[in-house]
Amino acid sequence: MPYVTVKMLEGRTDEQKRALVEKVTAAVSETTGAPAEKIAVFIDEMSKSNYALGGKRLSDQ
Amino acid sequence: MPYVTVKMLEGRTDEQKRALVEKVTAAVSETTGAPAEKIAVFIDEMSKSNYALGGKRLSDQ
Amino acid sequence: MPYVTVKMLEGRTDEQKRALVEKVTAAVSETTGAPAEKIAVFIDEMSKSNYALGGKRLSDQ
Amino acid sequence: MPYVTVKMLEGRTDEQKRALVEKVTAAVSETTGAPAEKIAVFIDEMSKSNYALGGKRLSDQ
Amino acid sequence: MPYVTVKMLEGRTDEQKRALVEKVTAAVSETTGAPAEKIAVFIDEMSKSNYALGGKRLSDQ
Amino acid sequence: MPYVTVKMLEGRTDEQKRALVEKVTAAVSETTGAPAEKIAVFIDEMSKSNYALGGKRLSDQ
Repeated sequence: MPYVTVKMLEGRTDEQKRALVEKVTAAVSETTGAPAEKIAVFIDEMSKSNYALGGKRLSDQ
Repeated sequence: MPYVTVKMLEGRTDEQKRALVEKVTAAVSETTGAPAEKIAVFIDEMSKSNYALGGKRLSDQ
Repeated sequence: MPYVTVKMLEGRTDEQKRALVEKVTAAVSETTGAPAEKIAVFIDEMSKSNYALGGKRLSDQ
Repeated sequence: MPYVTVKMLEGRTDEQKRALVEKVTAAVSETTGAPAEKIAVFIDEMSKSNYALGGKRLSDQ
Repeated sequence: MPYVTVKMLEGRTDEQKRALVEKVTAAVSETTGAPAEKIAVFIDEMSKSNYALGGKRLSDQ
Repeated sequence: MPYVTVKMLEGRTDEQKRALVEKVTAAVSETTGAPAEKIAVFIDEMSKSNYALGGKRLSDQ
């Protein structure tokens, strides 16, 4: 704890995801005081056909 | 904002999903007063082997 | 099924929330073919001190 | 209702998932008094490249 | 891990919730092989005015 | 987008939550390339009576 979920479009590289979880964990630890080894990060990737803004899916724009 | 998530079984057509996000966005905008372009819709598709009712997965029925 | 979650700021009236779940359920039923009585809607209300855009909470703007 | 979500790493067998939803449904029914047929269970499987503890993804350990 | 979320109406007693997390943890441990001390359970309580079935909130029925 | 949810125990100060959303947004922007103004952060606070590890709620330990 804390548990962090990052929901974003698929397509980031492995290197970006590796840096993302490292930097987010550091930011959460620094500001909440939780030890880094207790912080979990989940990446939740969406496809463009399952995400819409303004009533239109990204795959339809 | 608002953020809407629709969790459902996989298998709907692309045309159904396109209509779904359009109609849901309109319904949310009309009833909450939020402008449509601020409303996000996420479709979260489940497989029948990961969803159970009454203790039995749909893939086992 | 489907299961719909609407995440939004607190402060809508009871009448708005009543209309919201009714219209959203109709939109989902019409576009997915699921019978209305099988559709669940959850309203998830956030406070302005627990929601941020651009790194700033709404309560700090 | 209740709605139960089990988030775990992918890789469990079909037999394990079948037993999981059966036993969890029984545990929830017994302790909350909800009838089993009203209880839904969702299994949400993560890959090792989308889950991190201590700032390091399982796929990087 | 696993992480289990139980979403249900508010109103269960403290004793019911204590039994719920104990029995659910045992069920998940037994069927997935995960050690109990690694299993987290979250209880997510809804009010009747934020939950609808068939387009009607429980507070309106 | 991305959408970030931080689930943690209630009890952090307003100042901690303000710093949390600022630092997390910066970390996500830097590593994913998404502009900060498109990044939303939700804080989801749990009570000790609704969170269990190892089958025991924090309020029972």
